[in-house]
Amino acid sequence: MAKLGNDGLAEVVAKYPKHFVGWSALLPMNAPEAAAKEAERALRNGANAIQLGTNANGIPLDAPQFLPIFEVIAKSSKPILLHPARTRDMPDYPTEKYSKYEICSVLGWPYETGVTLARLIFSGIMDRFPDLKVIAHHLGGVIPYLEGRVGHSFDQLGARTSDEDYGALLKSLKKRPFDYFKDFYGDTAVEGARAATVCGIDFFGADHVLFASDCPFDKEKGKGYIRDTIKVLDSLALSDDAREKIFFRNAQRLFGLS
Amino acid sequence: MAKLGNDGLAEVVAKYPKHFVGWSALLPMNAPEAAAKEAERALRNGANAIQLGTNANGIPLDAPQFLPIFEVIAKSSKPILLHPARTRDMPDYPTEKYSKYEICSVLGWPYETGVTLARLIFSGIMDRFPDLKVIAHHLGGVIPYLEGRVGHSFDQLGARTSDEDYGALLKSLKKRPFDYFKDFYGDTAVEGARAATVCGIDFFGADHVLFASDCPFDKEKGKGYIRDTIKVLDSLALSDDAREKIFFRNAQRLFGLS
Repeated sequence: MAKLGNDGLAEVVAKYPKHFVGWSALLPMNAPEAAAKEAERALRNGANAIQLGTNANGIPLDAPQFLPIFEVIAKSSKPILLHPARTRDMPDYPTEKYSKYEICSVLGWPYETGVTLARLIFSGIMDRFPDLKVIAHHLGGVIPYLEGRVGHSFDQLGARTSDEDYGALLKSLKKRPFDYFKDFYGDTAVEGARAATVCGIDFFGADHVLFASDCPFDKEKGKGYIRDTIKVLDSLALSDDAREKIFFRNAQRLFGLS
Repeated sequence: MAKLGNDGLAEVVAKYPKHFVGWSALLPMNAPEAAAKEAERALRNGANAIQLGTNANGIPLDAPQFLPIFEVIAKSSKPILLHPARTRDMPDYPTEKYSKYEICSVLGWPYETGVTLARLIFSGIMDRFPDLKVIAHHLGGVIPYLEGRVGHSFDQLGARTSDEDYGALLKSLKKRPFDYFKDFYGDTAVEGARAATVCGIDFFGADHVLFASDCPFDKEKGKGYIRDTIKVLDSLALSDDAREKIFFRNAQRLFGLS
């Protein structure tokens, strides 16, 4: 199925070059070895990115069986498009079985995006593959707003835990946790929220933010978020250089587009 | 225990009026009926606020047994100080038993704060007690950064769920979900993160933000976050009026201080 899908995308992009500048591959994450092979095949076949969910059937991405996948992607120098994948089967309280009121996606998606970035750091995956490029949708999930906690709180990792030696883990990392978070990329898909856009660009910097809109999930089935996001970006005091990077140069560079 | 604690606070505040302007009561949430009574007693005894955790032994605050507590607090016109309470027993993925790397507090606390605000809205508690004042620590948890989702996504509540009639629930609410979120209060305890502070004040407005610092959880055991938070607020282009509200007038008004 993944092969069919990925080959289909390659075909459509080749056929309609004026509509599509590239494509991103999906992997059969339920079969990690096959997923690594398919990643390799798709990238050789021209995939401009690999899209990964923030979990695979409920399993976090830092599970050992997924390591070969990261190895293949890191070698390719193409980015990961990290998309949230939480369902209501992940409850919000330990006494419940399901997440209620669609909280799992409205709030849970940006949360799980942030959690996954943290797990990629603390599991050692980012140290193992320092050139791995991860684009976290929705402007990094919750991370930019939690800049203070991601900085100061993770600097004290281990201070509040007694049964795991997180202090030793912290020391074993090659960088300050905060610096890994800053090295990730975000996209501007925050549904046209201006203050959040400013906060996210402040956190990642103009070199690490790519235009995106969350199309088609607005009431107009797509046009609304595209228009609102462009409007917000146009309203910011960005230099021409920063503006061009966010609107297309970062995408050209990361996805290998001309 | 709760009575002893609350009476002790009242005593210390009465004894050292130059050091303490007021106190907030804690409740025995494991015994909801006793908690409602203790809330009533503490408020009569001068409590300026009631502090609630975002869960009580893993149970969400909108569980029916807690309704009498909200009733008492709403009548008093004193605010709730909503503090996150998630522990590592609340895992981040359905295939795991614990939250790893202290993610449960660093990212999970602001998440659960946002979740609790959503639950207070969609359970109907905010419609039932429209005058209830909730101050959400850490500048509203994740809510201000997710302004776009909290607005547009919750406007479409029910569109992605088939086995619950969330569409009917949405229609039964007295206001747009977004408007309830804007009616909550936040404090400035974001560990001196400037862009987050701007984003949070933009969301809640100067009438709904109170100074707080997350003291004593910085490396200097308190002084650092206080100093950094004041520095950030001083660096913002706030009117004198907005500045005074955030630094003390909102606190005077909400807590009933002179």
